[in-house]
Amino acid sequence: MSEQKIPYKIYLSENEIPKQWYNLRADMKIKPAPLLNPGTGKPLTAEEMSGIFCEELVQQELDNDTPFVDIPQEIQDFYKMYRPAPLVRAYCLEKALGTPAKIYYKFEGNNTSGSHKLNSAIAQAYYAKKQGLKGVTTETGAGQWGTALSMACAYLGLDCKVYMVKVSYEQKPFRREVMRTYGADVTPSPSTTTEVGKRILAEHPGTTGSLGCAISEAVEVAVTNPGYRYVLGSVLNQVLLHQSIIGLETKTALDKYNITPDVIIGCAGGGSNLGGLIAPFMGEKLRGEKDYRIIAVEPASCPSFTRGKFAYDFCDTGMICPLAKMYTLGSSFIPSANHAGGLRFHGMSSTLSQLYHDGYMEATSVEQTSVFEAAEQFARTEGILPAPESSHAIRVAIDEALKCKETGEEKTILFGLTGTGYFDLVAYQKFNDGEMTDYIPTDEDLKAGFEALPKVPGQD
Amino acid sequence: MSEQKIPYKIYLSENEIPKQWYNLRADMKIKPAPLLNPGTGKPLTAEEMSGIFCEELVQQELDNDTPFVDIPQEIQDFYKMYRPAPLVRAYCLEKALGTPAKIYYKFEGNNTSGSHKLNSAIAQAYYAKKQGLKGVTTETGAGQWGTALSMACAYLGLDCKVYMVKVSYEQKPFRREVMRTYGADVTPSPSTTTEVGKRILAEHPGTTGSLGCAISEAVEVAVTNPGYRYVLGSVLNQVLLHQSIIGLETKTALDKYNITPDVIIGCAGGGSNLGGLIAPFMGEKLRGEKDYRIIAVEPASCPSFTRGKFAYDFCDTGMICPLAKMYTLGSSFIPSANHAGGLRFHGMSSTLSQLYHDGYMEATSVEQTSVFEAAEQFARTEGILPAPESSHAIRVAIDEALKCKETGEEKTILFGLTGTGYFDLVAYQKFNDGEMTDYIPTDEDLKAGFEALPKVPGQD
Repeated sequence: MSEQKIPYKIYLSENEIPKQWYNLRADMKIKPAPLLNPGTGKPLTAEEMSGIFCEELVQQELDNDTPFVDIPQEIQDFYKMYRPAPLVRAYCLEKALGTPAKIYYKFEGNNTSGSHKLNSAIAQAYYAKKQGLKGVTTETGAGQWGTALSMACAYLGLDCKVYMVKVSYEQKPFRREVMRTYGADVTPSPSTTTEVGKRILAEHPGTTGSLGCAISEAVEVAVTNPGYRYVLGSVLNQVLLHQSIIGLETKTALDKYNITPDVIIGCAGGGSNLGGLIAPFMGEKLRGEKDYRIIAVEPASCPSFTRGKFAYDFCDTGMICPLAKMYTLGSSFIPSANHAGGLRFHGMSSTLSQLYHDGYMEATSVEQTSVFEAAEQFARTEGILPAPESSHAIRVAIDEALKCKETGEEKTILFGLTGTGYFDLVAYQKFNDGEMTDYIPTDEDLKAGFEALPKVPGQD
Repeated sequence: MSEQKIPYKIYLSENEIPKQWYNLRADMKIKPAPLLNPGTGKPLTAEEMSGIFCEELVQQELDNDTPFVDIPQEIQDFYKMYRPAPLVRAYCLEKALGTPAKIYYKFEGNNTSGSHKLNSAIAQAYYAKKQGLKGVTTETGAGQWGTALSMACAYLGLDCKVYMVKVSYEQKPFRREVMRTYGADVTPSPSTTTEVGKRILAEHPGTTGSLGCAISEAVEVAVTNPGYRYVLGSVLNQVLLHQSIIGLETKTALDKYNITPDVIIGCAGGGSNLGGLIAPFMGEKLRGEKDYRIIAVEPASCPSFTRGKFAYDFCDTGMICPLAKMYTLGSSFIPSANHAGGLRFHGMSSTLSQLYHDGYMEATSVEQTSVFEAAEQFARTEGILPAPESSHAIRVAIDEALKCKETGEEKTILFGLTGTGYFDLVAYQKFNDGEMTDYIPTDEDLKAGFEALPKVPGQD
């Protein structure tokens, strides 16, 4: 098909929205390592998990074999409210760069949560509702996940308790208000509503909180209140399963126009977007059907893939959650305060970690001023104000396109544009004022995190 | 076609995006009254206008006869970046309301300006560029128009000078940062960059500015700097022409499914969205081909249609702009400080004013707490956080749908969802906290504005 015929935006029709999720693990020869019970050091059983997560999600978490999972009709209907997401040909960016490369991006920001997080939020809320639960609890930092979950719960009539890191609650009141508009109960963490919160407040009066503390509170509320379970927006296998809708839609749209990407680029924090975007392409690669260059992009200030260790570690700073085998900087690692660009998690999805470890993908890290330069260029040419997280992928996509300009190669570059930056304007302001700085942790900075890795049989 | 087959979102294909704008005035038997020179009291000539507006826009402003105007290819290409806008069947809202009515809305918020304003911003910037100008000047209050213009100018490489009401510049820093990200030069008004700004600052030290003052500064910069012209985001005939793309796309989408709306509802501030949405439908009504019930919705705190006078008045508070014949509360009218919901202009598009005066449309006013109740219900069911402006239309659409529930009528209701509320969360917070109040000006409150209407021959 001639290039002229490819529109700026490819929208699938409603009946082309995938009706099944794709479980990447089914095609992995080496499966991701199981979650471990930190007390016993043994793989977490379904029964142990089901006190925290709802039952269907436990099954999805543990199922390494079923390649396709039916999307329940009610979730399909909800998806129709904000999907299909457009696959955009970045004609204007290509022109501005003067590159022979063809750039495509899958834009997941056309919903109020402003990101792809809604894809898994509705699934997790649905299964909680189906199990007859009253509600769910979660933590949120910047608030994209909390907003998405609030939307999903409002739709299903499910109670939603969000523990929001106190400093974000106070400094980012707007996301908090979106969550409240969706009827969520948003509590600044640490709070006096939980035992762990009270203990932390007694030990550290005046603390402004941390994600690890908010997780601890959310988990406590879930396990101590009948009818509640805890939900998480990234890292877990189940989340990658739900997010596969991103990649499946993308692949369907590309296939319609006989387009094969050479390079696939996604930003990586906990891995929810990257895992979702690459899923069907990685599946082809794992099955030996096709080859793609797949690049994970992370912030230089939180470089779990590029400088972390592949080891069992806690998923939370509070060290109360199960152990996951992943690329990690250590659960005590917290990015420098000057880091504005999201993707702050110390670890990474076990599934993606295994794939990276086995050589199926690359990873690179970028510094935040260059990320915001890319964000600005993108906003000016493509008319979308990107989230800082997404802009990590934009940075590398632009760099790859500029390499094509040098070599004359007409590569096809695909990247994931996870969301919008409407709630990140404090960071944009810093950039606009020339006050943004970069930070790369030294080896010394990373040492403490590695030394604190838990002792697990078979792990150094 | 059976109802089942209508998707949640109707996206036109790229080649179905209209290639011509529709000029509603061509079908009006009684044309809107011309702009008057406030000095002479005589209709403004093209020559007088061309010192302020670029030439092609002057022609569009004055042309009451040409029904269709070709959209230049470069504007068509820009439209492809964020259009077609979806026409959404509000299945979820209908279900929540339990109404037999069928509700559709045209959503114009899927671009960074967050509203329909971009449709005219790109057109005005394009003609300025085509005329070889260096840049454009404008004023902005809340900032939707300023953001849209900044985006358009960034795309075309045109300088963009925005005078932003000082209190908004300081209290709404995020929109300011979006404009700066698009490279616009944003100045808090009043400023020392203009003579009128200096004079106002000397007379009123410490003033936080007003839209009228910002207009005066923007106009001064345009007329005193070679290569600059002034642009405006609403009220003018040219703006309604460009915004007709909203209605044309909507009608094309409805026609594909053989849907005929019974009621068409739009919010009305200066009239840009309403005029654009209703254009082709009103055309059919004017030509006697079809009948539609068309409702303009305005805030009870700024009720120009429902309580204003149909008279010649200044378009600006500073009384330096031309006189327009319109429904007006008087150019000195400023809505109460408690008014949070946008649509603050004291007057209304001359075209829409004439149509309302001649009985082709209805108008109603709504109070802001009920507007935010509708906004919240809409957000929870349709997953879009609506702008307060748009929520005026949502309020009346819901009310009409609830009437259908009582009567059992299966009416088809269409409304314009002009944009998103990401930058209006201070107002949402007020609502969420139960601190939002209503305000309806008394007749006494409106008296001063009416008494200050300018003396124009033939006007009481």
